[in-house]
Parts: sequence; C-alpha cells; structure tokens
Amino acid sequence: MVSVLTDYGLADEFVGVLHSVLARLAPGCPVVDLTHGVRRQDVRAGSLALLRVATYLADGVVLAVVDPGVGTARRGVALARPAGATAAPGGSRPGGHGFSPQVAFVAPDNGLVVPALRALGGPWEAVALDGRGYGLGGGGPTFDGRDVFAPAAAHLARGGELGDLGPPVALGSLVQLPAPVTVWRGRAELTSEVTWVDNFGNVQLAAPPVPGGGADIFGTGRATLRRPGPSRPSGPSRPSGPGGAAWAVTVVRAFAELGPGRLGLLVDSCGQLALCLDGASAAELTGLKEGDLVTLLP
Amino acid sequence: MVSVLTDYGLADEFVGVLHSVLARLAPGCPVVDLTHGVRRQDVRAGSLALLRVATYLADGVVLAVVDPGVGTARRGVALARPAGATAAPGGSRPGGHGFSPQVAFVAPDNGLVVPALRALGGPWEAVALDGRGYGLGGGGPTFDGRDVFAPAAAHLARGGELGDLGPPVALGSLVQLPAPVTVWRGRAELTSEVTWVDNFGNVQLAAPPVPGGGADIFGTGRATLRRPGPSRPSGPSRPSGPGGAAWAVTVVRAFAELGPGRLGLLVDSCGQLALCLDGASAAELTGLKEGDLVTLLP
Amino acid sequence: MVSVLTDYGLADEFVGVLHSVLARLAPGCPVVDLTHGVRRQDVRAGSLALLRVATYLADGVVLAVVDPGVGTARRGVALARPAGATAAPGGSRPGGHGFSPQVAFVAPDNGLVVPALRALGGPWEAVALDGRGYGLGGGGPTFDGRDVFAPAAAHLARGGELGDLGPPVALGSLVQLPAPVTVWRGRAELTSEVTWVDNFGNVQLAAPPVPGGGADIFGTGRATLRRPGPSRPSGPSRPSGPGGAAWAVTVVRAFAELGPGRLGLLVDSCGQLALCLDGASAAELTGLKEGDLVTLLP
Repeated sequence: MVSVLTDYGLADEFVGVLHSVLARLAPGCPVVDLTHGVRRQDVRAGSLALLRVATYLADGVVLAVVDPGVGTARRGVALARPAGATAAPGGSRPGGHGFSPQVAFVAPDNGLVVPALRALGGPWEAVALDGRGYGLGGGGPTFDGRDVFAPAAAHLARGGELGDLGPPVALGSLVQLPAPVTVWRGRAELTSEVTWVDNFGNVQLAAPPVPGGGADIFGTGRATLRRPGPSRPSGPSRPSGPGGAAWAVTVVRAFAELGPGRLGLLVDSCGQLALCLDGASAAELTGLKEGDLVTLLP
Repeated sequence: MVSVLTDYGLADEFVGVLHSVLARLAPGCPVVDLTHGVRRQDVRAGSLALLRVATYLADGVVLAVVDPGVGTARRGVALARPAGATAAPGGSRPGGHGFSPQVAFVAPDNGLVVPALRALGGPWEAVALDGRGYGLGGGGPTFDGRDVFAPAAAHLARGGELGDLGPPVALGSLVQLPAPVTVWRGRAELTSEVTWVDNFGNVQLAAPPVPGGGADIFGTGRATLRRPGPSRPSGPSRPSGPGGAAWAVTVVRAFAELGPGRLGLLVDSCGQLALCLDGASAAELTGLKEGDLVTLLP
Repeated sequence: MVSVLTDYGLADEFVGVLHSVLARLAPGCPVVDLTHGVRRQDVRAGSLALLRVATYLADGVVLAVVDPGVGTARRGVALARPAGATAAPGGSRPGGHGFSPQVAFVAPDNGLVVPALRALGGPWEAVALDGRGYGLGGGGPTFDGRDVFAPAAAHLARGGELGDLGPPVALGSLVQLPAPVTVWRGRAELTSEVTWVDNFGNVQLAAPPVPGGGADIFGTGRATLRRPGPSRPSGPSRPSGPGGAAWAVTVVRAFAELGPGRLGLLVDSCGQLALCLDGASAAELTGLKEGDLVTLLP
C-alpha cells in the first residue's frame, strides 16, 4: 500500500501522473490518497495533516510531497524502521484505537514528515535519495514527485531495500520546522496557535486539553477567546470585548449542543482543542486562520 | 467493495483517514469514492446524490456520512437485506440498465440513505450502531465517520453479520426527510422543486417527465419557466415576463441543440426534467439554486 | 487498468457513477483517476492534459470524456493497436523515462485524444461506438460517459475485442483540433501560445526549448516577455515596458533560484518552456491565461 499526500491539488493531472508511475513501477500495489489539498507549498500545513493521520496510516509506504525547493540542492529522503526493529514503546501515540502502523516514508527533507515520525515513535533510519538507477529522466527538474519520490516509493512498496535508494544520513541532520506555539499559564489561561482550519470552518489549536478532559478545562464550562491584532470579524455574532476581538465560548462535546451563532470549544477528533459553531464556520465568524495566535481565559 | 459518500471535501485529510481505516480493517477491499463534494452538512443534498447513483452502485457496502448531529444522541444505523431475501420486484428502479445492486448501508440515521433504500426496493433490516467491540477510541466524539461508521462498514465488507453491529431497530423508526415538491396541474402546468445544480450548471427538477417522454411534455416543444420571488437573473439572456423572472424554454434532447443563451428543458441522465444551456450554466442564467420552486407553463 | 480523465469535477457524483459502472462491468479492474478537473467542456485543455500524461500512462484502457456534443450526432470512438502491432519507432516520445505504454482509448470523437495518440506513435485502428449490446439504457441521452464510454472501456479492460464496439472508421476521419501556436524567428525571438496554467500558477508555453537546452535559449540567461493586448498585471511586480505589458525574465532551472517577485523561464517537467515565480503565481503576476499569445525577446 502506498499512501500519498501532496499539495498538487486535483485541477491538474499531477496526481494522475503519480498514480500512473506507481502503477507502472509497483504493479498491483493499492494507493490511498491521504489528501492533495494541502495549501500549495505550505510545508508546515502538510506536516500537520500528516501528523493528524499518522496513527491511522495503512501499513506500507507514505509518499509525501510538498516541495517548494524542488530543483535545488535540498535533499530527498526515505525513512524506514531499521531491520528487526519495531516502534519504541515510548512513541507518543495519541488516541486509543490501538493501531501500530508499520510504515516507511519518502519525502523532501524540509520538515514535512518529522512530526509524523515523532508521533509514531522511533527508531528510524534514513537515506538521501540520489535517484541513481531508479529515478526517471525526462522533462525539466521541477517534478521530483514523478521523477524521484514516486519511483523511490515504488521501490520500497515492491519490498526493495532502503539502502538501494541512496547513502545513509543521520536523523539529526533532518530539517525540522518550529513546533506550533502553546503556552499555558496554569490551568487558567492558554495562548495557542491555530494549527488547522478545516473544510467545516472548525479552528484547531495547538493545545491539547489539560489532563482531566475537555469538559473540565475552564471550570465553569465557559471561557473567553481573545484574538490579538486588528479585528476582522464577520458573520452574525459580534466580538464582545470593547474595541477588541473577543468572544464568549462554551465548552461542549458536540457541535449540535450549541445554539445558532454561539462559539464552542471542544476536544476534536485529534484530541486537540478546537473552536466551532453548529452548522457554520467558526473560522468565518472569528476571522482566524492557520498560524494566528489566540488566548483563552476563564 | 465499499462505496463512500461524504460532505468532507478533499481539502483536508478526512477522506484519506477513512480510506486508511478501511484499508486497516478490511484489507484488500476496493473502495469507490461516490463523491465527497456534498455541500457541508446538507443531508438532503447528500440523500439526493445517493439516490441518483443508487441503481448503479457496485455490490458491497455503502458508507454514507453527512452528519451535522455527530456527537449527539442521534443514532447511527446499518441496513442490509434480511438473510435469504432479495430485492422485491416492486422496487421502483429507474433506468433500463438492468443492474440490481446487492448492497448494505452504513450511515447516520438522519434520512441520508432513505431515498436510496426506496429506489432499490425492500425488504431491509436495520440495526443501531453501538460501536461495541468494533468502534475506535481516541480523540473527541466529532469524527464518527472514522471511529464508528468506517469500522462498521469494514465489518460488513469482511462478511461480518449485521447483527454484530448493534440491536435491531424498526424500519419505520428511521428518520425521513420531506420529499421534494412536485405538483402537476394536468399536463399543462407543473410546479417543481430544484433538486440539484450540477457542476455544469444544469438545474434538475424534482419532476420526472409525464408518460410519453420529455419531447411531448409541453405539446409544442416550448414552455415558459417562472421563478417566484425577487428576480436575480444574470448572463446574456433577460427574463421575458414583465416585472418578473420568466424565460422561454425549448424542449430538447441534447445541450447542443440549443442556440447560444437559449434555455432548454430536457430529460436528464436520471430521467428527471432539467433546465440547461449549451456550453453555459442554466443556474447562473436563472439564479436558481437547490430548494427553489419553479413553475413550467405551456 | 482503466485510466480516467474527464471535466466532471468532484462536486457531484458523476465520477463515482463512472467508477461504479466500471466496478460492475469489469470487476477487479483497478482505476486511476488522471484528473477530473479539466475546465468544463474545454476539449482542448483536456487534450493537452492527456498529452502531458501520455507517456506515463499505465498499460490498459484510457477513458477520456470531455463532451460538449453529448446527445448529438457526434461519434464516440475507441482506438487500439492493430493485432500484433506495437508502437512505431517513429513515435515522438518526449522524456527519457523509457516507458512504452500499451494502451487503448475510448472517447468522444472531438479531438480529445488525438495529441496523445500522436505522442505515443502509430499504428492505431479505430471503431465508432454504436452502443449495441454493451451500452446502458436509462435516463436521458446526456451522460454517455456512464451509458456508452464506460461500458466500452470495461469491455476492452476485460480483454474484449475492439471490433465488438462498433464499425471501423478511418483514422483520417477523426476530428482534430488546431495545434497550439509556436513561431520562432531564428533563436532570437519566439511567439508562443499559453497551453496550461497549473495549480501553482506556472504558465506553460507551446514551445519546447530550442536544441541546446533551456539554459541556452536566450544567450545571456535573460529575456523580455511581452504580452500583447491591454495590460492587466497584478501583484508586486510591474510591467517594465512603457505603456505595455512586458517583464524581464530570468532563465533558471528551479523555482527557488528566483528572488521574490522575479519572473523566471524554465524548462518544465514536460520539457516545455514555462514562466514561473518562486512561491507565487506567474499567472497572477502576468494576467496570462490559457490560449493567450506571448512573445519572448532577447
């Protein structure tokens, strides 16, 4: 099985070319599209999407391509478990579903897969993709997904050795992105970065709930949300704070517990705090977008 | 085979997670994406899309998730033919393609699958999904597609028993949505609800043609379309009625029979009446959207 | 394997119906979606997308449907290699990947597959689809993808004979679209048509680089881009020409070689010249769209 995540979008035939190359080089191997809707060239958004899906991955190879540096000296890498190794028990696996994905990764070395690697727990070994003997020629050097990464993934999917893909590299040399910001002041106040605005307009924060569960986060089940910076609210609800962007939020377990236009805070399907509305977009209401900082107060 | 319909969109990794869970729990089972483009949380639009594809479904399990009530007390259900039963000959199967899909359904109990159930004909038996022994833990209670529905679908796809998924429920207790409006006044006048605006801007009505075929509907091959309410026309054509939204429509069999900007009425690929233009969007021209009512007059 | 390209989009269940029909009529046959994002009813854009993917196609059947003439007397066609024949060595295969796809095509006869046929090299034989014995009834005549083309593709995917699908037609009678415009004035000046604006805003031209490689095209590694017609530039960069739309462009091999807002010219992954920016959309900067003509000067 090859699982694929890219920022190619579906308007062009890029994804179709990847599938075609995989079908040629690893015949009969099933392919799962994780998503191709990562914001173009947004490595961080891609790394967070891959993190969210990590513990659910089908066993096999993960082909991840968000690659603004294509054609430059940036490395491509492949990562797999060392022979005989299994995931260390110390791997921080969120969720209670009990899956333990046995996967390898093929991706540019720009931080894209690092959060997922960590979530799955070590040990890992890595090689730098040199394309020798497996890369495809043709065209210019702007489509390594087709010419290098997919052939490398097909090699692993066929049961090929990691070491055939290029020379070993130290894990410590992998490019890493800064972690999303989360600052707790006790259990009373939280400043956190928006990590995801999904298709429904739910606004995920970097923060998990404090131990004790989401319903206990802010004692009374209510909190105040503050967004620094100029106010750009829209929608039926108005900021409650004088001269600033602030909203009352209600702690809930389900969207439908909220009345129309009331902003909610819940533990989302990733185990993270998220802002939501019932049947509407919390992102639209608050004007929040990925990378913004918000503060939650009692 | 598992056929999947959701309102998840393709910008996020939701669909990829569903596929990954299906691959883990029902290895080797092929998956068909019916669509993930249902307008978010629009159960009725989802139910009509599922109805349109119903008689073409591949044999297997249909996993349908449009679920604004996720996390509340709303039930999930699974439906299958009773052991030994086949579809009743009285099932109202549109079309002459002769397929007779052997399918089971897994979905929230909110009306989403009821029109498709009817189109395929009874008998059916149903259970309420309790998630015991097959549901996935982890995260908050906002992604039952991943945590309950996909595991239930995988269970059936592996050949598991319906009764393993939860206690039986009466078919009569299933939530139903109101049927789209269609009122004929003889063969001379029709008031009908817009059931679908497709990617090409074709505007499907709830009404099938009267017996005799589309070309005979309005005798002369021409009709007048009236849209109640304030006029919001756009595009090259103008409403013909004084002070109101009305258009002359020509009965055709193919888009290309129409001249530029001329509104047509045809029997569409579902056997329903539909408004269309040649190479342009009838929805844009008329301002019609799903749920609107229109009247057709001789 | 069936590879599918359409202009159906993914908002509706059209693609799901195609997959369902293929699953019913050619059980177990894997399907690759090349793209369903061709601009609606834009046969030429579809033909160019199919051309770009042609030499990477998985062996099997290509089902291509962009079909504004559906329901009219326009023919459907199927094409395959004559029995015993292989691609002529004279086929103009771009790229050095060495694939030699063994494919058949099913499509409307409107020019959609002709550029791909040429790229793969002859010989081909063709039949006109008459739907007899394999077409699906039901609904109106507006969804030949479902009712004629997919069943024909399934027939070939099952190993059926081309001749079963309808009477032979002469290759010379196939509808052809005009080729994109490319006019060189020696190696000093080029007028070329925009053939593709991709998801990243890269602007592909009809012109391949002159022999010698992209870096040598314009000697100094710099050129001037002129766009005739009224100026509609946007973005941080401004046209450099007095009173007209003109930009300095730098010849590069990778997007990341460019500074912010600097327009680049490279040989893209199809071996064509393309305009690009680093991390931004060259199409937005220049206002160029598919079908526009541009001139490149030293």
